[in-house]
Amino acid sequence: MATLKVPSTVPSPSEDCEQLRKAFAGWGTNEALIIEILAHRNGAQRKKIQETYFETYGEHLLKDLDSELSSDFQRVVLLWTLDPAQRDAYLANEATKKLTASNWVLMEIACTRSSHHLLAVRNAYHAKYKKSIEEDVAHHTSGDFRKLLVPLVSAFRYEGDEVNMTLAKSEAKIVHQKICDKAYTDDELIRILTTRSKAQLNATCNQYNNQFGNAITKDLKADPEDEYLKFLRSTIKCLTVPEKYYEKVLRLAINKLGTDELALTRVVVTRAEVDLQRIAEEYQRRNSVPLDRAIAGDTSGDYKKMLLALMGHGDA
Amino acid sequence: MATLKVPSTVPSPSEDCEQLRKAFAGWGTNEALIIEILAHRNGAQRKKIQETYFETYGEHLLKDLDSELSSDFQRVVLLWTLDPAQRDAYLANEATKKLTASNWVLMEIACTRSSHHLLAVRNAYHAKYKKSIEEDVAHHTSGDFRKLLVPLVSAFRYEGDEVNMTLAKSEAKIVHQKICDKAYTDDELIRILTTRSKAQLNATCNQYNNQFGNAITKDLKADPEDEYLKFLRSTIKCLTVPEKYYEKVLRLAINKLGTDELALTRVVVTRAEVDLQRIAEEYQRRNSVPLDRAIAGDTSGDYKKMLLALMGHGDA
Repeated sequence: MATLKVPSTVPSPSEDCEQLRKAFAGWGTNEALIIEILAHRNGAQRKKIQETYFETYGEHLLKDLDSELSSDFQRVVLLWTLDPAQRDAYLANEATKKLTASNWVLMEIACTRSSHHLLAVRNAYHAKYKKSIEEDVAHHTSGDFRKLLVPLVSAFRYEGDEVNMTLAKSEAKIVHQKICDKAYTDDELIRILTTRSKAQLNATCNQYNNQFGNAITKDLKADPEDEYLKFLRSTIKCLTVPEKYYEKVLRLAINKLGTDELALTRVVVTRAEVDLQRIAEEYQRRNSVPLDRAIAGDTSGDYKKMLLALMGHGDA
Repeated sequence: MATLKVPSTVPSPSEDCEQLRKAFAGWGTNEALIIEILAHRNGAQRKKIQETYFETYGEHLLKDLDSELSSDFQRVVLLWTLDPAQRDAYLANEATKKLTASNWVLMEIACTRSSHHLLAVRNAYHAKYKKSIEEDVAHHTSGDFRKLLVPLVSAFRYEGDEVNMTLAKSEAKIVHQKICDKAYTDDELIRILTTRSKAQLNATCNQYNNQFGNAITKDLKADPEDEYLKFLRSTIKCLTVPEKYYEKVLRLAINKLGTDELALTRVVVTRAEVDLQRIAEEYQRRNSVPLDRAIAGDTSGDYKKMLLALMGHGDA
């Protein structure tokens, strides 16, 4: 369930554009007005606003936002305004660059999006960067991480609910054997994780639990400090229980000394239209604090207002 | 250039369906009429014919063709009538089955089709087999072949013409080093072959030739009997000079004692609307015999007539 709130009667794109233009005019910027509009429009509506803005003023809304706003607030507004596939392409590209490299962001995009959304991201990546996403991921990673990440970003998993139980049983056995052998980068283990449908993987996890008495992710905790093992556990969580994965990302981002704004912004922006409600439930269950209160306590100013608006606060 | 010939005025789909229905009626089948129609309609037209046939008679054209025809002629007509993406999905699925397993067919589909066509094939595979193509390929292959094939079928290569020359030079060096070390399944070598755009790979091959004086494929002939090396050479040919790859497949299919009808049918059917003209030129250059004459000399009956019709023979 999404947290995004859209008003029951939405102003026309040209009215929205006129208001945004007003928010940029004169000395200073009317941040509250920007939040009021953009944080309460869905993907299709934001797209229409961008198109109308360009037709009306001959300028790009994203460029104007970029020059009017700054720091964390700027980033959250820009990322939110972007079309979801273009946004993921942007985040993925950023994650392959030296200073901002992050295998985690790449894995997250590869594993929590639907197959068709991931294809749209790969298409947007071609259009924007004149390269393929797997090309950049393969070029910027190495060793064990590359072995897992490249097939993850290249996957086009079957999305149906059909599950082959015999296969789930036999593949649970394979996974168990590999974990017993500490063969965490074994071809068969990687094959199962990177090609099977999410429904099938879920069945395999259940079979594993039934046959061997532990969750796969628990048995993968042999060495809690091993970065690759952590990554492998998160991959499985992203594929089977994404809300738990995201709860943990938010928990770490908020509890961190000084808050991890990059992570906080990324999760709120990419999930507000998808399942942020579900993630917030998981957060409250695990931390005994509502997610919006935790975010409010850890952020400030327009950045805070924008995040809370995306969480569904205030009148839409 | 395609060899397919479509008449300047094409009968309406319902006229075509009526004629096909006549060809099936009574004792025996009018094969000549089936060829006259289907071998002279392009993909969009064949699709329309199938839809109209179903709307008019409540039966599937493919099923009726299946029950009216037999052996090699049946296969060539059925494969030809199928939508290109569905046809490739069918061929790929067949190639992952025990009795008909063929890494070559999978590689061919992965490397000679456009990025968007390959995505359409993966989509068609989902729809028909309720699984992903990479899932079946990974499950049915192992070792070196799997390491190369899975990323090949999962790739969504950038299709633009832009080439990074600095990258081509540095990656030509990497490829050369790996070949010198006989590290034919090295991660870097596989990464370059499976993720770079065809234009970029072509530049890398040229740089290789310039810097080291030989074609990559020539340097990969260290052990002419090694099946994986053969496969690697063919992969590079498919990606950079597909007409040469196909010329060789046809040459081997025709020269073989008893003709390899599976290969012959596959190449003619999948390339007639794409580049069979170009492949035929390559064939004549290499064998000093026109391809249509070679095919005519090696086949017979309606099968031969259908292949020649797809080669552009006869009045459209």
